[in-house]
Amino acid sequence: MEFKIKDIANLLRGTVDGDGEVVVNNISKIDQGIPGTLTFLANPAYTKYIYTTAASAVLVSKDFQPDSELNCSLIRVDDPYASLAELLQLYQQMKPSRKGIEQPSFVSPTARIGEDVYLGAFAYVSDRAVIGRNVKIYPHVFIGEDVVIGDHTILYAGVKIYPDCKVGSDCILHAGVVVGADGFGFAPNPDGPFTKIQQVGNVIIEDMVEIGANSTIDCATMGSTILRRGVKLDNLIMIAHNVEIGENTVMAASSGVAGSSKVGRNCMIGAQVGISGHLTVGNNVRIGGQAGIMSNVPDDVTIIGSPSQDHKDFMRSMAIFRKLPQLSRDVSDLKKWMSSQDGK
Amino acid sequence: MEFKIKDIANLLRGTVDGDGEVVVNNISKIDQGIPGTLTFLANPAYTKYIYTTAASAVLVSKDFQPDSELNCSLIRVDDPYASLAELLQLYQQMKPSRKGIEQPSFVSPTARIGEDVYLGAFAYVSDRAVIGRNVKIYPHVFIGEDVVIGDHTILYAGVKIYPDCKVGSDCILHAGVVVGADGFGFAPNPDGPFTKIQQVGNVIIEDMVEIGANSTIDCATMGSTILRRGVKLDNLIMIAHNVEIGENTVMAASSGVAGSSKVGRNCMIGAQVGISGHLTVGNNVRIGGQAGIMSNVPDDVTIIGSPSQDHKDFMRSMAIFRKLPQLSRDVSDLKKWMSSQDGK
Amino acid sequence: MEFKIKDIANLLRGTVDGDGEVVVNNISKIDQGIPGTLTFLANPAYTKYIYTTAASAVLVSKDFQPDSELNCSLIRVDDPYASLAELLQLYQQMKPSRKGIEQPSFVSPTARIGEDVYLGAFAYVSDRAVIGRNVKIYPHVFIGEDVVIGDHTILYAGVKIYPDCKVGSDCILHAGVVVGADGFGFAPNPDGPFTKIQQVGNVIIEDMVEIGANSTIDCATMGSTILRRGVKLDNLIMIAHNVEIGENTVMAASSGVAGSSKVGRNCMIGAQVGISGHLTVGNNVRIGGQAGIMSNVPDDVTIIGSPSQDHKDFMRSMAIFRKLPQLSRDVSDLKKWMSSQDGK
Repeated sequence: MEFKIKDIANLLRGTVDGDGEVVVNNISKIDQGIPGTLTFLANPAYTKYIYTTAASAVLVSKDFQPDSELNCSLIRVDDPYASLAELLQLYQQMKPSRKGIEQPSFVSPTARIGEDVYLGAFAYVSDRAVIGRNVKIYPHVFIGEDVVIGDHTILYAGVKIYPDCKVGSDCILHAGVVVGADGFGFAPNPDGPFTKIQQVGNVIIEDMVEIGANSTIDCATMGSTILRRGVKLDNLIMIAHNVEIGENTVMAASSGVAGSSKVGRNCMIGAQVGISGHLTVGNNVRIGGQAGIMSNVPDDVTIIGSPSQDHKDFMRSMAIFRKLPQLSRDVSDLKKWMSSQDGK
Repeated sequence: MEFKIKDIANLLRGTVDGDGEVVVNNISKIDQGIPGTLTFLANPAYTKYIYTTAASAVLVSKDFQPDSELNCSLIRVDDPYASLAELLQLYQQMKPSRKGIEQPSFVSPTARIGEDVYLGAFAYVSDRAVIGRNVKIYPHVFIGEDVVIGDHTILYAGVKIYPDCKVGSDCILHAGVVVGADGFGFAPNPDGPFTKIQQVGNVIIEDMVEIGANSTIDCATMGSTILRRGVKLDNLIMIAHNVEIGENTVMAASSGVAGSSKVGRNCMIGAQVGISGHLTVGNNVRIGGQAGIMSNVPDDVTIIGSPSQDHKDFMRSMAIFRKLPQLSRDVSDLKKWMSSQDGK
Repeated sequence: MEFKIKDIANLLRGTVDGDGEVVVNNISKIDQGIPGTLTFLANPAYTKYIYTTAASAVLVSKDFQPDSELNCSLIRVDDPYASLAELLQLYQQMKPSRKGIEQPSFVSPTARIGEDVYLGAFAYVSDRAVIGRNVKIYPHVFIGEDVVIGDHTILYAGVKIYPDCKVGSDCILHAGVVVGADGFGFAPNPDGPFTKIQQVGNVIIEDMVEIGANSTIDCATMGSTILRRGVKLDNLIMIAHNVEIGENTVMAASSGVAGSSKVGRNCMIGAQVGISGHLTVGNNVRIGGQAGIMSNVPDDVTIIGSPSQDHKDFMRSMAIFRKLPQLSRDVSDLKKWMSSQDGK
C-alpha cells in the first residue's frame, strides 16, 4: 500500500513541511532510515538521525526547528508518538481481515457461533461452547466444552482453552497460549507416587486482556483463576491455580505467579520474576527483572532482588557486594592490628 | 449436577449436622463462600470463615466444635482434606468422558490403536505407533513414528511427541507439551556456523507421570532422557537431553535441568530453578525457588541461592547482605579510628 | 538397521581391531554399555569404561593402547568425536524421510510450494506464502500470509509463523516455536487499560538457524527482529521485538532478550539469562546461567550474576557472601573492642 504524505498529514490533523506528493509504503525507525518509508522523531536523543535519514518523511512535533538542511519532508503534529500509534492502528485496520468458516474445521452441533466469526481450518470447538460476535479463531485452536469467548476477541493459531473457561471481549491470546490446564496440586502419599488433587475450577479472563505466545494460565483447584480487565501478559508467563491479577497490571516475559497469590492493580512486573504462592502483592507495585517475591508486598513500592527488597536498598547493598573482597581484607587487617595492640 | 448433602455424607462415610436435604451443585473455597456450594475446613487458620460463609454446607472434622451459630449444614468426616480429594475425584469421574474416533483425524495404517481410545479430530498418529487401551488423544496431538503410549494415558490438545519416544501408563501430558525434540548439541567450527550433532536417542516417560502445559522434554543425544515413575512436572519446564529425574520427584514451573544431569527420588524442586549439566542431585533434596545448582548435591539437604548453598546459611548471609551499607560504614569508621590511634 | 563393524570402519576411513564381522544396530554411550551397539571413547575420563562395557564395538583414537584385555572390537580413527558426529549424521540420513502432500492440509491457491516439499496433514499455508525446495512442514504447522521459507528448512509439528516473517534456508524450528507474535508494546493511559501499540514489523531468520521447542520470537514494532546466520537457540527462549542476535551466537534454555537489544556474534549465553531492553552486548561474550544483564557489555568478556559483573570478581564476592555472618561478628567484636579502648 502506498500513501502520499499530504494524505497522511490530513489523517493525523497535521501539516506538511516540504513535498506533500512524496509517496511512502511503510513505517520505519529513524535510525534505520529506509528509503520510501515514513519515520518519526519522538525521543530527542534521536534528533541527530533526522539530518541523515534516508526515510522520505518524518513525523515531528509542531515546534521542531531543524539546525541544518533536511533531505526529507516533515509532517508536523501535536504529539509525534501519539500520532504514530494512531497511524499504526490505521495501517493495521487496512490490512485485509480474516473472515468466514474454513473447512475442514470441527464445530460441535451444540456450540453457538456468533456473527462475523472467522473460524480457521483445523480449529476445534467443543460442546456447548459460546463464541461471541466478530471473534477470530485461527487454525489449530482448541476450545473445550462450555467455554465462553466474548465479542471481538482474537485467538491466534494453536491457542488451547480447557473446558469451562471464560474469555472476555476485545482480548488477544497469542499463538500457543494454554488456558485452563490443571493446577499443580498433589497430596503426598506415605508410599509411592503422589495422589493427584482433581482440579475442578476454571479460568476467568476479563475484557481487554492480552496474553503473549506460549504463556500458560492454569485453572483453579476450585473456584477461578482470574485475570482482571486490561491485564497484559508477555510471552512464556506462568499463572498458577487460583491466582488473581488486578486490573491493568502488566507483566514481562518468563515471569510466574505461584498458586493462590493475588497481585493488585496497575502493577508493572519485570521479566523472569517469580512470585511465591499464597501472597498478596499490593496496587501500583513495580518489580524489577528476576526478582523473587517471598512475602507480602504493600502498595506503591518498587522492589528487586531475590529475595526481594526495596529497590534502592538493594542497589546500595549490591554496590558493597562488589567490594566484599576488599571489605574482608580490611576486617582482617583490623583484626591483626587489634591483636598487635592487645599484645602491647 | 446437583447433590443432596446427605448423599454426599454417605459417599464419604460421614454424618450430617443440620439439614441433609440441602442441595449443592459445586465445590468452593471457604473464604469465597459461594451460595449453593459445598466447601471444607481443613486448615484451622480458616476457621473464622465458617461463621460467615454463604456456602450451603461445609466438610469438617468429626470433632469440630463451633463457637457460635452456623448458617450452613455440616458434613463430619475423619479427615476433611482427604474427603475433599475423594470428592473432587468422584466429581471429575462423573463428568462425561471423551470417546471414539473423530474425523478428520490421521492414523497411519501401520499404527496400532488400543480399545476404548479417544482420538480427537485433527490428531495425527504416525507409522508403527502403538497406542494403549483407554488412551485419550485430544485434537492437534502429533505422535511420531514408533512412539508407544501406555494404557489410560491422557494427551491434551496440541501435545507433540517425536519419533521413538515412550510414554507409560496413567500419565497426563498437558496442552502444548513437547516430548523428544532434539537435544541442544553443536560442535564448534573454526570458521562459520556450529555443526549440529545429530540426536538419535529418545525420551522414556514411565508410569504415573504428569507434565504441565508447554513443558519440553528433549530427546537424548544417544540413549534416553528418562522421567521415572511418579514424576510430576509443572508448566514451562525444560528437561534437556540425557537427563534422568528420579521416582516421585516434583518440580515447579519454569525450572530447567541441563544436559546429562541426574536428579534423585522424592525431591521437591521449586520454581525457576536451574540445574547445570553433568551434575548429580541426590534423593530427598529440597531446592528453593530461583536456585542455581552448579555442583553435585548430596541426599537429604535443603538448598537455595544462585549458586546454591544450605538454606539456613543462605538466609543468614542474606540478612547481613541487607545491612552491608552499615557494615561498610562501620569498617570505614574502624579504619579511621585505627589511623587516629596509630597517629597518637 | 544393522551394520557390520568393518563397513562402518570403511565409511569412517578407519581400521578394525578385532572381529570386523560383528553386527551393531545402534549407537550408545560407553558408560551405558548396551550390547549390540557401537560406542565411542573421546573423553579420556571415560577410558575405564572400555574394559567393562557390554557394547560390541568402540570408536577409539588411532593411538589408543589398552591396558588390559577388551571384550569388544575397536574401530580406530583420527578423531573419535568427529567420526561419531559423522556417523550420527549418516545414521540420521538413512532414516526414511517424510515426503509428499498429506490430506487434509490447507494451502491457499496463492501460495507457492517448492519441489520435493513434505506438507503434513493439518498443516496450513496462507495466502502468498512462498515455500522453498525440500522444505518439511509437519502436521499442525501454521504459516501466515506472505511468509517466505527457504530451501531445506524443517518446521516441526505445531510451529506457528505470523504473516510477513522470513525464515532462511537450512533452518530447523522445533515443535511449538512461535515466530512473529506481537511485540509487547503498550502506551499508558491516564484512565483505564493501556493502549496497544500495533506491531507492524516482522521477523527475519537467516540461514542455518536452529530454534528449540516452544521458544518465541516476537515481531518488531516496526522493521525487523533478526536472528543472524547460524544462531542456535535452545527451548523456551524469548526474543522480544526489534532484537538482533549476531552470527553463530548460541543461547541455552529459558533465556530472554528484551526489546530492541542487540547481541553480537559468537556469544555463548547460558540458561535462564535475562538481557534487559535497549542494550548492546558485544561479540564473543560469555554469559553464565541466570545472569541479569542491565547495562551494555563490551566484546570478549565473561560475566555472571544479577546484575551481572566480571565472572571472577563475582565468584570472589560470592565467596565472602557465604562468610558474611562471620564477617559481621568480627566487625561487632572490633567495635566492642574499640569502645573498650576508648573507655580506657
